[in-house]
Parts: sequence; C-alpha cells; structure tokens
Amino acid sequence: MTEAFKAPTRLLMGPGPSNVAPEVLAASAQTTIGHLDPAFQAMMEEVKDLLRYAFQTKNSVTFPISAPASLAMESGLVNVLEPGDTAIIAQNGVFGGRMADIVGRCGATCVLVETEWGKPIDLDKVAEAIKAHPEAKLLGFVHAETSTGAESDAATLAKMAADAGLLSLMDTVTGLGGVPVRVDDWGVDITYSGTQKCLSVPPGLAPFTVSERAIEAVEARKTKVQSWFNDLNLVLGYWKSGGGGGARSYHHTAPVNALYGLHEGLRRLQDEGLEASWARHAAAHEQLAKGLQGLELGFVVDAPYRLPQLNSIWVPDGIDDAETRSKLLTEHGIEIGAGLGPFAGKVWRIGLMGETAREENVSRLLGALSKVLGRGLQAAE
Amino acid sequence: MTEAFKAPTRLLMGPGPSNVAPEVLAASAQTTIGHLDPAFQAMMEEVKDLLRYAFQTKNSVTFPISAPASLAMESGLVNVLEPGDTAIIAQNGVFGGRMADIVGRCGATCVLVETEWGKPIDLDKVAEAIKAHPEAKLLGFVHAETSTGAESDAATLAKMAADAGLLSLMDTVTGLGGVPVRVDDWGVDITYSGTQKCLSVPPGLAPFTVSERAIEAVEARKTKVQSWFNDLNLVLGYWKSGGGGGARSYHHTAPVNALYGLHEGLRRLQDEGLEASWARHAAAHEQLAKGLQGLELGFVVDAPYRLPQLNSIWVPDGIDDAETRSKLLTEHGIEIGAGLGPFAGKVWRIGLMGETAREENVSRLLGALSKVLGRGLQAAE
Repeated sequence: MTEAFKAPTRLLMGPGPSNVAPEVLAASAQTTIGHLDPAFQAMMEEVKDLLRYAFQTKNSVTFPISAPASLAMESGLVNVLEPGDTAIIAQNGVFGGRMADIVGRCGATCVLVETEWGKPIDLDKVAEAIKAHPEAKLLGFVHAETSTGAESDAATLAKMAADAGLLSLMDTVTGLGGVPVRVDDWGVDITYSGTQKCLSVPPGLAPFTVSERAIEAVEARKTKVQSWFNDLNLVLGYWKSGGGGGARSYHHTAPVNALYGLHEGLRRLQDEGLEASWARHAAAHEQLAKGLQGLELGFVVDAPYRLPQLNSIWVPDGIDDAETRSKLLTEHGIEIGAGLGPFAGKVWRIGLMGETAREENVSRLLGALSKVLGRGLQAAE
Repeated sequence: MTEAFKAPTRLLMGPGPSNVAPEVLAASAQTTIGHLDPAFQAMMEEVKDLLRYAFQTKNSVTFPISAPASLAMESGLVNVLEPGDTAIIAQNGVFGGRMADIVGRCGATCVLVETEWGKPIDLDKVAEAIKAHPEAKLLGFVHAETSTGAESDAATLAKMAADAGLLSLMDTVTGLGGVPVRVDDWGVDITYSGTQKCLSVPPGLAPFTVSERAIEAVEARKTKVQSWFNDLNLVLGYWKSGGGGGARSYHHTAPVNALYGLHEGLRRLQDEGLEASWARHAAAHEQLAKGLQGLELGFVVDAPYRLPQLNSIWVPDGIDDAETRSKLLTEHGIEIGAGLGPFAGKVWRIGLMGETAREENVSRLLGALSKVLGRGLQAAE
C-alpha cells in the first residue's frame, strides 16, 4: 500500500508558489459543500468583490477561473481573437512568448514585438507596431515578467492600446498584490493573475477580470469561441450574480475547497490593505538587495524596473547553479527558482511573494546563501 | 471587512461533489511546496500509479489534468481532432451533447447518434453510424451519464470503435470508483474522470489516461493542437517520468494542495480495493431502491442500466421540485441534485458516490425524504 504523503516544510522563495498562511490552508480544508449551495454562492459573491478590490476595478465580470493562470491567458485570447484577426504581442520573457504561441493557435496573426530579456517592454517599438498594424485588434503584454523579474509600464501600454482602438490584455500573474495594479485607472480590458504568487494561496486558480469593451468584443464575434471551457458566454451563466439566487446555471463544477482558500487569502489582503502589502514587498526587496550586495551577487534587471517580488540574480562565475539550489533546498529547506529559457543555468530567481515577503525570511535566505556560497558572512548578517 | 467563510456541514447526495473524508481534507491542508520540488515529484509518480490502478490500465500517459473534468473532455477531443475530421458522438444526456459541441469547436464534423435520455446508448444506432461514416476518426461516448444515471455498455462501444479503426473517447466522470471501469480490457483510447464523484476528493482535477494509439494520433497531427494548455505534447514534458528527476520541464504550476488531496483519496481507494468500493456502491443503491419503493418514488432508468452511484427519480405529481430540495438542504442538511435539460423540474438526482455511499447516509436521506414528502414513514425506517 502506498504511504501517506508527508509534505516537507519549505521556505518558498522561488517564482511561486509562495508560502501559504495556515489560515488559508485551514479555510480550504473545511468540509466540502455543493457548488450550487446557497452558502457557497454567497461566498462566491464575496470572492468576486474581493477580487475587484485586488484588481482595483469595478468590472462586473471579475471571477476566478477554475484552472491555473496559463489557462486564463488562453481564455483571454481565445474569447476575443477570431481566425484572421491580428494581435500585437510584446514579449520580454517566457510569458509573452506563450501569448504569441496561443495567438497562432487561435488562427490569428501575431505581430511579435521583442524586447531583450530582463528589460521592460520597449514602448517605442510597441508604438511603431501599433502604427504599422492598423488592422490589429489586441495588444497583449506581461506587466510583471515572472521569467525575468522586470516590470513593464502597464499603464502606458494599456493607454497606447486604448488610444489606437485596440483591446489590451495584461498578464499580471506575478504582479497582483505585490506592486500596484490598477485595472480601471489604467484602462486594461482583459487582466488575469494567479493565486500562488503575491496572493499566497495554493496554485490552481486564476483571478480574471474583463471590461465592458472586451465583453462587447466577445458578443460581436462571428465565430464560436474555439474552447467550450473558456467560452465566456457559457462561463458567465454560472459566475454572474444570481440575484434571487436561483438564476445560476451549471457550467462546470467549481473547485469548492480551493475557492474557500482563495476567499481567505483575499480577505487577508483586504485586512492588510493593498498599499501595506505593496510596501511590505518593497521593504523585503530592499533588505534582499542590500544583503545580495554584501554577497557580491548582481541583479539581472536595472533598479528602476525591478519587481520587488521576483528578483533575478546572475549565478556567479564558477558556481554550480543546480548544486547551489539543491543545497539550499536540502540543507536549509529553502526553495529558490532556476532560470528559464536563455536564463537557464545563468540566473536564480528569488521570490519575495505574499507571505514569503517578510524580514525573517529574507534574513534566513541571506544566511543560507552565505553558507552555501562560502562568502560574505558579515554582510549577510 | 469581509467575514471568514464558515462552511456549513452538508450530507452531499447530489451529482457531485460527494462527501470528502477528513483524511483527504487534512492531506490537502499540508504546507504548500514547490511543484518542482523532488518530494512533490515523487508524490506525482505515486498519483500516476494510483490512477493506473483506479483506471485498470498500464497506459504510461496517465495523470490528473489541473482543471475540472469538463476541460479533460475538451483536452481529449482537441488533441486528436483536426479541422475536417469527423467524430461520431453518442449522446444520451447532457455530457454527450457537450462532446458534440466541442467537436464542432475543433472544426470537425460531428455525427450525432442520439438515444433517449435515461436509456443506455443504443448500440445498433452507433453501429449504423460507424458503417455509414468510414471517414470518421473517433467515437465518443459517456459511460456513466451524470445527467440521467444511465450506464452504457462501454466495453462494447470501445470494441466497436477499435474494430472499425476508430479512436474511442470515454467520459467516466461519474463511473470511476463506483462501477467497474477497465480501460485496458475494454481497449479505450482516451478516458477521463473527475475527482468529486466516486473518488470523494474535492472538485478541481480530472484523472486522464491515454493509449499509445491515441498518442500516435496526436503525434501524427498536421496542425497544432488548438489549445496551448491542453496540448499533450507540452503537458507531457512536465508529467512524464523524470527518471533521474531533473528532466521535468515547466509547463504550468501544478495545483499542489489539490494533488495532495487526490493522492490521499486514491490511497483510500487502493486500501479499500476497487471491488470492495464497487460492492459498497451497489449495496447503498439497493438500500436506497428499497426505501424509495416504500416512498412510492420511481426510477427514471430501467433496473439493468441504473448506475448505483447516481439515481434519477421522478419528482412525484403535485410535489414542488425546488421546495423539496430546499427543505432537504435547510431542514435536514442534505443536498440532492436537480434535473438538467429536459429533466429540469421533473427529476431528482440522488448521488451515492464515494464516501457518501454508506448505509447511515442512505437511511438519513430516506428519513428526511419521508418527512419532507409526508409519506411512507414506516417503509423508510
């Protein structure tokens, strides 16, 4: 017989999942109830309100997709793109590349605007692409690139899209809760995130919010959305406010317990306040940056564009990437992330997300790094 | 500030979710670790083995999809169907209809073979359709229709497909763990299920298994799979056995805590044994059937085709459907399911799935039904 799984205790300082508060785990372990239970539906309404707060939006269509954030990216794209459409995708890391891949799978033409990895999206290049492609329908970009730790100027990108009559699609999987995200002020049409980054909720759900303008685009489609599961016309039958409670129609069975956890995680964010959460992430980052300087470790991203919650660090010459991460994990119980794509083997990604973004955790990592690398002990303490 | 959610205690006797064992909830509330952590990856290998046992298969490609079963249906179809292909879909309820919808969204032609709701799939009609459509690539069917409680002859349907050189796709969301499912003996190519039915794990994941023949069909595609998230070529980079442990590539962040719960639920199934689980479901059904007779409530499905775990009952004349269900929920803490589609308002669906399929639960429901309906007290006790 297979033995019960005993999860080891880790300090999660990679690109997500981040540490989860015991209160969130306890909430998600409450007894399962039906997804059509009035008690559950009342909780769903609260989740939607709490997400509106997190996203800083009044969008009525704001809900958690019952799947990882990658599916939310796909959902955003397949709902508005039709075969023959053109989408401009700004890429400065893995996730912009994924957007471009999905655009192609929609039968749409992708105009790829590439910026060097580790830099924020080049606004001039995007402006040129918008000018050169008046036929384009959508501008997609990543606000907070998880593969590099660079933050792009999402407000300006969304405005450029709106000014040109394009829909904007923003990936802020790593951004939400860690740095300002202002969906309404920025005028973003389609925004999605994940739960396992700065919200500190286990992975598996994807907060999602859509403007009226984007809904109109979905309703104006000539063809069916190519995905049944993602088709907003169907999903909304379940997620829309039921008013008297009886109007909700079955789409799929919602992940009840995961949603308990999200409710609790969002409540904690509400309790702390967005500004306080952003400040806590910034403070943890400052502390880390100071410590890394003492360890003679350098950032990939230039200071003004660094996401406090995702710190990409060059692996020093002569140091074995995998061995260092493995020692941190097995000897110190700390997970940090490896580099992706062109950064594989060259970069470490240190996450300070959600519950992880606390002084004691940063100190513990700096101490452990100092031991594993055999350098900079004083500076790290 | 939003108040913490307190889940009410319910006896879940609808079409799923079913009651979840405290051990499963406790397992899923363990501390979150990284999806690339060696400890997590070792657990994933056990989950795959446990799923092979549940499905009675040796398929190497056997894993849980990180989303509800509806997405697994879509995943099965989009991976093998290309624009211009033809699929024969046997429909005898809601979920066969959903398959047909997805086939169309793949750009494929759907040959729909309809059987009256509440009856098992008409094998003769399927045979005719196969004969009439030599160009068809796939036969899709629902083994255990959750909308009606009818079990179809999956073994024969899969054999008919194989004999004609068609791929078979089987929905056994409600079947797995409750009645025999023998993927290898039956020769099914693509099979999926859900966690929240007879496995008694919270909703949100979808066990999935694919034959070599189906993998070959995916590899022989001329076009890209239209969904990035579902593309098996990509998903398998993460789920395939990593051998030394380092070969796993990142696809999406796995729903770590939900998978802890699935591991525990599957372990419980292994501990009880499939045959014992099937027998327990059958016994609960017999007890329910006897009690319903005393209450003068009639089954929708003829006896030989009744799924023990999903019992569709005609709402008696003069009885208010919604009011009765509401009273069961609010006065007795018992959830039963409403009818779907043409059965809305006419049928109740009583689930005896997984942990719910126990004598004390059936007795409790019969007692409550007797009180709410004001009939058959003796028979129910």
